[in-house]
Parts: sequence; structure tokens; C-alpha cells
Amino acid sequence: MDFKVGVFDSGIGGLSVVREIKRLMPGQPLIYFGDTARTPYGPKSLEILRRYALEDANFLIQKGAHLIVVACHSAASAATSLLESKLAVPVFEVVTPSVAQAVKLTRNSRIGVIGTRATINSRIYDRLIPERLDNVRVFGMACPLLVPLVEEGWINKRETRMIVKRYLRPLRNKQIDTLVLGCTHYPLLKQVIREKAGKGVKIVDPSEEVARSVYNFLRGKGLLTGGTGGGNDRFFVSDLTSNTQMIVERFMGKGIELEKATFS
Amino acid sequence: MDFKVGVFDSGIGGLSVVREIKRLMPGQPLIYFGDTARTPYGPKSLEILRRYALEDANFLIQKGAHLIVVACHSAASAATSLLESKLAVPVFEVVTPSVAQAVKLTRNSRIGVIGTRATINSRIYDRLIPERLDNVRVFGMACPLLVPLVEEGWINKRETRMIVKRYLRPLRNKQIDTLVLGCTHYPLLKQVIREKAGKGVKIVDPSEEVARSVYNFLRGKGLLTGGTGGGNDRFFVSDLTSNTQMIVERFMGKGIELEKATFS
Repeated sequence: MDFKVGVFDSGIGGLSVVREIKRLMPGQPLIYFGDTARTPYGPKSLEILRRYALEDANFLIQKGAHLIVVACHSAASAATSLLESKLAVPVFEVVTPSVAQAVKLTRNSRIGVIGTRATINSRIYDRLIPERLDNVRVFGMACPLLVPLVEEGWINKRETRMIVKRYLRPLRNKQIDTLVLGCTHYPLLKQVIREKAGKGVKIVDPSEEVARSVYNFLRGKGLLTGGTGGGNDRFFVSDLTSNTQMIVERFMGKGIELEKATFS
Repeated sequence: MDFKVGVFDSGIGGLSVVREIKRLMPGQPLIYFGDTARTPYGPKSLEILRRYALEDANFLIQKGAHLIVVACHSAASAATSLLESKLAVPVFEVVTPSVAQAVKLTRNSRIGVIGTRATINSRIYDRLIPERLDNVRVFGMACPLLVPLVEEGWINKRETRMIVKRYLRPLRNKQIDTLVLGCTHYPLLKQVIREKAGKGVKIVDPSEEVARSVYNFLRGKGLLTGGTGGGNDRFFVSDLTSNTQMIVERFMGKGIELEKATFS
């Protein structure tokens, strides 16, 4: 039986992770769940995030997932150890492989992290990066307006560029040489972020990093499904609006059929 | 027994309604519920909004409310008739009295409405205003970024002013003379909205209108509680973070004690 990868996110931002997984393992069957009825997770408390994350993961397991990818940084920051203790399947998430990549890339040991308020307040990068690199400085910056800007499709508008610049200025002043995009929505703003972060700043995209670590795990276990498949992939959301459909196309192009999850 | 007013909103924006109620009826006991665990309602579907609105209203009734005020335009647009049919208490909401006020104020019969995507897509103002005024033109504009800007406290930042201007430009071009602030967050931006809407455009603030209609109802029924009271008012939220507490202070000043609702 094919080994199914389950991916969940607070909404549809996690499709940036799906895109990378399908790029590396196009034949691997996949189930996605986006909790659009309760999105966004970024401003919510640890307690609520833990409850939601467990419900989301259990939904994917009920639907046949053999492995869970937490594509939401807010949920990963709040609930990874809870999920690992409660679930019988392997749990991957966006934070750990990004930490490894940031540590590998930095030359001056000054790393910036941008994310939602939940992710930055969790201080998870501040805790994990120094475990891997001595004398490193980690500078976090909550950028709560970037998710709504992406969801509105204001990818390259003047206001968006100004807001990105305003958020990144303190990190530039700290002379970071590496910047972690600590939210699954941010890869869509990669170009303007790269520009405003300053010359030579290396960007860590957690979507690529977590996809690579899932790939390495499946290959190591001999669980990779070959081919280009994908016809059986399923995409669930807890609420379905025409705007959701539009944002999905922004991430994945046309052709994704969203199913309404009867859940929660 | 004192007649308790229950107010609910998707989050804490509905406190702009509470503020007006307390201004008119400082002694009237009040219970507030903000659904911060599932906020915002603006981008969500009719089906989800109806379910949430019914749960929110029932929570207030369980806590002793004798009358429900739907302070959220998205919920009011989606669920008012449902609430009226399912609940045994009077239901007030922000849309109906704003319609009456807009019709009263306009001279050129060109009325603008700004709100969340759910409110604007519901076309509720487009349906209700022409029932009260012949040959009126109603121009709606969804402004989904204004709620996150208010919640970030970016009330008078340059980017906010530019975004408000961009949203209002099409309404200016339609030569509206009256503008309905169709979202409980927008009164906090009233100054910049007034400026960007153009000279002489009259602003309808639904928080004031719904408070006045509740006041008239209670006075008519002899149910007003005198005095300046308020010591027994209760404020519930379904999720409680330090940021929520900060936004509450932005709306109401210090001294509001938020209680965590054990609900949903």
C-alpha cells in the first residue's frame, strides 16, 4: 500500500509545502487539510493552537495519512511535542529543518526570523538555533500584516513593499546575513522580502526544507512512491468560499478540487 | 430583575458597540462575547457564519442575556433571520439601523458601504437600502485589510492612510455623499476614512445606530436600568492572548477584565 503524506495548515498557506513535496515526490499520495473555518492561527493562544493542531492531525489520520507534516509555523511552534506524544505516526514540521538550514547558511552567526505573532512569541527559533550553533544571535520580528496582504493577493503593491520594508528595517540594522521565512504564506512574497532584506542576505524557505526532510525519510525507509501520480491527492478545507478557491489557484495554479471537511 | 443586554462579535471589534451602549445606558447590565478563537468572520462562508452566530448567541443567553445584539456585520448579514427564528429573545443587529440612518442622511441618493468581504458579498445593504428609498444607488467596497490594520494598532500610519485611500477611491468616483462603516472595527479609523472619503461625505457609524435602537426599545418597554452601574458587566472571549488584552484597551481604555469562555 502506498504511504500517504498528510499535510495540515491553518488555512491554505500550507500549499506552499505541498508544492515542494509534489516537486520532489510527484507520485507520493497526499492529503491536505486547511482549517479555513478557524484561520488564522497566528494571533491565537498556545492552548487553542494545541487543541486545533491535534484535531487537524487526527482528521488527516482518519482520512488515511501515514505521516503528518505540520505546515503551519504557529501550530508547529505550539504543538509539535504534543503531537509527537499523542500520535502513532511520524510528525514532520517546518521549524526543525529550517533551523538546520539557517545554521548551515549563516557566516556571521546573525540570523533573522520573521513570522506571525504566535510563532515569534513562542521563541522557538531563539531556543533551537543556539542548540546547534554557539554564539549565534537570533533576531525575531512578528509581521502580522503579511498574511492578510498575501491572502488579498497584494503581492507586489506599493503598500506591501513599504510594509515589508518597515518590518525588515530592524533586522537589517542588526546586520543579519540569513533570514528564515517563518510562515508558509511568506514564500509568495519572497521577491520583495529578498530585496528589502538587503544584499547578500540568504533566505531560508521552510517549505523547501521540510519537503526535503520528508523526502529523505521516505527514501531511507524505502517508502517512496515513484511515477508522477497525484490523481488521488485530496484537498480538504473546513470552510470553502470563492475567495479560498482563488487563493488556492494563486498557490497551486488551476485544477485543485477542494473538498469540504465535515469536522469540528 | 435587571434586563441584561448581550453583545457578540467575531472578536473584540464589537466593543465599539459596547462603548456606545454604555454611553447611552451606563447602568444597563451587559454581557459581551468575542469569538477570538475563531476570529475573523469576514472571510468565512455563510454556512459557517450561521453556525457560529447561533453558538455565540446561545452562549450569551446561557449567561443570562435577555436581548442579543449582533455587533458583527458579517454575522448580522449572514445570520439575522436565522437568529430571529431560533431564539426566544429580541435580536438587534448593526445593519438595519444603519440602513435607516443612511437613507435619512443622503441627499443625492448615492450611498457607499465599506465592510469585510463576507458583508459586502452578502449584498445586504444593496437589498435593504432600496426597500426604504427609491432610485437609490448603493456602492459596496470590500476592504479586507482594514481589520488587520486596526488590530495591529496601525491607526494613523502612512501605509494605512494609503490603503484607505486606495479602497475609497472608487466610491469617491461614484460621488457618494454618505458612507456606511460596515464593520465594527472601522470606527477606530473614522478620522482617516472621513478625510479620504472626500469633503462633505456623511459617515454612518453602525455602533451608534444600534446602541440608539436598543436604547429606544428598552425605554419603550420600561426596561432601562438607571444609574451609572457597570460593575457587573462581564466580558468573555473564546481565546485570550496578551495581544487581545492590548486591543481591548485600545477600544475601551484600561479596566476591562476579560474572562475565558469555556465554549465550543
